[in-house]
Parts: sequence; C-alpha cells; structure tokens
Amino acid sequence: MTMPDLPTNDRFLRALRREPADTTPIWVMRQAGRYLPEYRATRERAGSFMALAQNPEYACEVTLQPLQRFDLDAAILFSDILTIPDAMGLGLSFAAGEGPQFDRPVRNAADIARLAVPDMDGELRYVMDALRLIRRELRNRVPLIGFSGSPWTLACYMVEGQGSKDFATLKAMCWNQPKLAHRLLDTLARAVATYLIAQAAAGAQVLMVFDTWGGLLGPAPFREFSLRYMAQIVAHLQADSASREMPVILFSKGAATHLAALADTGCGGLGVDWTVDLADARVAVNGKVALQGNLDPAILRASPEVIRREVRAVMDSYGNHPGHVFNLGHGITPEVDPEHVKVLVDEVHAYGRRLREQ
Amino acid sequence: MTMPDLPTNDRFLRALRREPADTTPIWVMRQAGRYLPEYRATRERAGSFMALAQNPEYACEVTLQPLQRFDLDAAILFSDILTIPDAMGLGLSFAAGEGPQFDRPVRNAADIARLAVPDMDGELRYVMDALRLIRRELRNRVPLIGFSGSPWTLACYMVEGQGSKDFATLKAMCWNQPKLAHRLLDTLARAVATYLIAQAAAGAQVLMVFDTWGGLLGPAPFREFSLRYMAQIVAHLQADSASREMPVILFSKGAATHLAALADTGCGGLGVDWTVDLADARVAVNGKVALQGNLDPAILRASPEVIRREVRAVMDSYGNHPGHVFNLGHGITPEVDPEHVKVLVDEVHAYGRRLREQ
Repeated sequence: MTMPDLPTNDRFLRALRREPADTTPIWVMRQAGRYLPEYRATRERAGSFMALAQNPEYACEVTLQPLQRFDLDAAILFSDILTIPDAMGLGLSFAAGEGPQFDRPVRNAADIARLAVPDMDGELRYVMDALRLIRRELRNRVPLIGFSGSPWTLACYMVEGQGSKDFATLKAMCWNQPKLAHRLLDTLARAVATYLIAQAAAGAQVLMVFDTWGGLLGPAPFREFSLRYMAQIVAHLQADSASREMPVILFSKGAATHLAALADTGCGGLGVDWTVDLADARVAVNGKVALQGNLDPAILRASPEVIRREVRAVMDSYGNHPGHVFNLGHGITPEVDPEHVKVLVDEVHAYGRRLREQ
Repeated sequence: MTMPDLPTNDRFLRALRREPADTTPIWVMRQAGRYLPEYRATRERAGSFMALAQNPEYACEVTLQPLQRFDLDAAILFSDILTIPDAMGLGLSFAAGEGPQFDRPVRNAADIARLAVPDMDGELRYVMDALRLIRRELRNRVPLIGFSGSPWTLACYMVEGQGSKDFATLKAMCWNQPKLAHRLLDTLARAVATYLIAQAAAGAQVLMVFDTWGGLLGPAPFREFSLRYMAQIVAHLQADSASREMPVILFSKGAATHLAALADTGCGGLGVDWTVDLADARVAVNGKVALQGNLDPAILRASPEVIRREVRAVMDSYGNHPGHVFNLGHGITPEVDPEHVKVLVDEVHAYGRRLREQ
C-alpha cells in the first residue's frame, strides 16, 4: 500500500533530491498546451485563455490531459506566470495570437505604492481550488508542480504592459530610479513567496519559479534585480512549515553564465536551457542541485529517429549520475506533433534504464 | 601629411590589432539609424528601407550622418545583413513596423540548388558603389567597416521567410536533412566570402560578420551549422589578396559560451553582447583577439550620469589593456535620445584617456 502523501511514481522527487531512481524522470514545459487537440477543444469551450486558467474544473481537465496520453513523471498546474499582477488589479488579457497584455501597467511611484500582496483566499483562490482539485484527481499518480513567474519577469510585463524584445522600460527604471525598482521587486518577491507557500498548502509538491527574462540582464544587474529576489523567495519558502521540505526549481532562461550563482540560492533544482551542455552545467553547479533540461524544443519538429538520438545525447551529456530531470530547454510549441512527444517520453525512460545498466 | 590609405584616426584599427592607442575607440551598431531625425528624413525621401539601402547616394548620406554629430572612430556601410539572399532573387522587403520578409523563401532541394553566388558587379553593385562613394566622402577621417550576415543567420531568414522567435523551420531542416542544410550554408559561406572580398576591394577597411541568431543553437549545432561556416569565411578572406591583411570581426549574439571557439577561427576581433563580463571574455579568448562591446543598449535610455557610470564599468571590466573597441552589445534602438549617444561617445574617449594614465 502507498502512503497517501507519497506519489506512486516518485522518480521526479527522487531526482530532485539527487537520489537514484529506476530511470530518468521527464515532464515537459507547457505540456498542457496548444499542440494537444484536446487542449484546444477545452480552450474553445472556455472561450479565452484567462477563462480556462481561472476555472478550476477546466484547469484540472487540461492539467491531466497530457498525463492521459504520455507516461510523464510530473503534472504541472495549468496556469499562467502572470497571475499575481492580474490579482494585483493590473487586468491581464491575451489578444488572439498575441502575448500577454496589462490594461493598467505600472509606471511610477504611486502605481507601485498601491500594489499589495494579493489575497490567496480571494483573488487567487481559483489557483488554490485548481490545485486541490488536481491533487484529488491525480490520486498520487505523479507529483504536482506549482509555479510562479519570478519577480523580475513579472516586473518586466507589469512595467512594459506587454511583451517586448528588451523590456527597456523596466531596465530604464532600474537605472534611473533603482529604489523604485527595488520596491516593486521586493513587493513581488513577498507576493511570489506567499503565493508559492499557499500553493504548497493547497497540494503542490514541487515549486518552480520561471525567470523567463532574467537572461536579458547583464551579469551585475542580473544579480541585483533578478537573482537576489529569487534567493529571497527560496529563503522564505525554507522558513515556512508548509513549504520547508519542498524542492524548489529555479529556471532563468539565457542564464548560462549564472548557473553557479543560481545553485547557491539554496534551491533544489535548476532549469537549464539548451544553449548549455549539461556536462558543463554539472561542473558549474558542483553537485549542489539537480538539473532539469535541456532538449531544444525545435528538435520535436525533427523525425522520431533524430528525436531519439538527440534525447540520448542530452542524457549522455549528463551521464549516469543521480539528479537529472529530463525536460525541454523551453516550452513546447503549438505545431509539435503529439506523437513526437510520445517518442520523446518513451526514449527518456528507455535510455535512462540503459544508462543505469552500464 | 597623411598617407592616402591610412585613416587619420586609426584608433579603431590599432585596437583591432591589439596595439596601444591614445584612447579607446568607439562606434555604435546601427549608428546610422532611426534614433537620428536626419536619418528619418532621408528615409522618408527614399520612400522605403530598401530604396534607401540600394541607392548609393542615400546610403552614403546616412552612413555619414552620425559622424557629423558624434566623435565616432569608425563608419559602417549603411546596408542590411540580408542583401545576399535578396540578390539571390528571394525578394526582400520590410513592411512598416515589421521585420524582414522574403517573397520567395527557400524550402527544398530544388530551391537550394537554384541559389548561386550573386554577381558583385551586378545585383550587388549598389553596395560596392556605396562603399566607393563613402570612402571618397570620408576622406580617410575614420576607417570604413563593410559587413554581411553570417551564413546561419542568412539561412534562418531564407528558410523561415521572415523573422521568428526560434527559426524552427531551418532547425528542422538541419536535423531532418542535414546534407541539404549544409549545401545551403556552404553556398552562403562562399557568397559571403566573395561579397566581403568585393567590399574590401571597393574600399571597406574592416569586415564584420553578424551572426544574429547563432545563439539560438545548442553547443554542438552551433559548431556544426554556424561557427564552421564563419571559420570558412575567415579562411577565405585570409587567402585573398584584397582582404588578407584586413581585420575581421565576428559577432554571434548570445554566444557567451562560444567565445574561445570563435576566437580560434583566426578572426581579428569578436563582438560581445552585454550578458558577458568583458573580464571573463578576455580570459576566455586568452589574448587572441580584440573584443568589441558591450554596453546594454537599454542603458542609453537612462540618465547621462548613469550612462557615464555604466560606460566606466564596461571599460574597467576590460581594464587598461590594448584591444578594446567600445560598442553596444547590440544595435541602438529607435527611441534613444541622440544627446545620450554624445554622452556615451565622449565618456568613452575621456575615460579611455584616464585609464591609460593610471
């Protein structure tokens, strides 16, 4: 019999603790997404992305869809990285074919002073309801990941009001009014920590912070405006009884040169994009954390043979050591054939077993 | 009296040869660009970007505009990185507010077989005419840079047909039909080498290859599909009498982990984006090449004091060694105040003198 709080398939948790497991676990960033026809059907019924994300039944339904198709080792809450600023009153929407937009971007001291940590039982209750429902429906088959955007990445969108190549509006604030930028980032760090602790209490078993735009910063500003606040969040989570034992994964895209510093935050795992060789990444983090990654998502457009070959190359690069969670180096894209995801998942498990026999 | 072939201001050439100079030279990627009202006026008269680039008088006019305002140490031909595929018959255009588009993208073996190295006295004569005119008008005040996109970067746009976040169409070709991808890249490498040699013969004194999208590749594909063809071009240039002595600068954006390999191509200088500390970059290239960079272009939106402080931080990071060409880490953006460029250029020269007195 299985203990009620231990997922039946604990490969993912074992890898995050850098303990041996029968094979390499895999999940896929954005695994509940537009490449799945069943996802597109549910989104159609919901009417919009936000209506899908904010309805716990729909969110649960799409969270579970990829697990019904593929032998994945983790579920991740279906949600958006920008729920916190939306709950802060900025008004998040997604125009068709466009990225996120805020109706009320944050531009000055008064805007920032008005921001408060949202109520986890109020504006963000839908997230907690979704987590509770997903945990129930998962029946401990695999662990459930909760997540948020990083303070830097949230601030990028909040100040710019929308996507951007360089998020120069926030960068200008960091340079011209650093105190103001720090006030914003500090509020966001407290909000993200509170949010992730509430997610842990609602059933998330692993917590992840997506720092999608940290890589846009130079080395010194990365440490000052992005890393510092992720470290604050990790410290916060480790001080709270709901999340103390819970592995935290940090993922800064484009942060090849910052892996050692990220590992020093005390996080349990680091997401790694595909521009880094995992062998080099292992050296950089010096055994301190598990590594999650790092197949180029574009490889899923190649043939099954090529996908299998490239999967093996990623796994060989990590080698036969504990602490590897297979994933893409960034989210899966809409045009991928779901059959290719099956090839990916099955090859990771099969080759992971072969690696362990060597 | 000055020798007719030696520019009066040779700081830039001296830095590229890693020889001492009175101060640090600076030029700015996209220095002839939309942030200048006089550029916008000329572009307006020309009617379109391509009409501007393809008319030698207009191209000369806008090339010289930033030199009239700022104490820059180099001029760079006003042109586009995609002139070669346009000359190959793909039909380049720029819709208002959009990136480049090709009417006839390259998708299969037949498309690739049809591609030929363009005639430098035919389709690309306008570039050579522009260079000759600019050299005459410059009167050796500063050296003139000629350039091209890298084979990988040209192929990205040629196969995708337009800009893209991930250029997954070309990546899929690289994985599914590597021979085809190599045939395309090999044709492009020969075309780029021929083009740069012709530019040298027409008056360019330094040659630069922009590998804007090399950083989208993982380490092994970067070496196979991007680096290899840039190395081929450098070897080609060094074998030709017109370009043999000419410094070549390679710039792969997002290639922080590839600096040592890029330096091994035999190039004279490496462009470095702002995500790398120049002190680390110097260690990586081990004195083999000059380094060009690397202020975050977004810093030009900060106040003059901040710009000066950040300029000094970049220069301190390189230290008082020969071989630094100051530049941004990527092209200047349209909303920058031209007065801030003056602050930048003047601070580089002033602080470069102070550094040398220490």
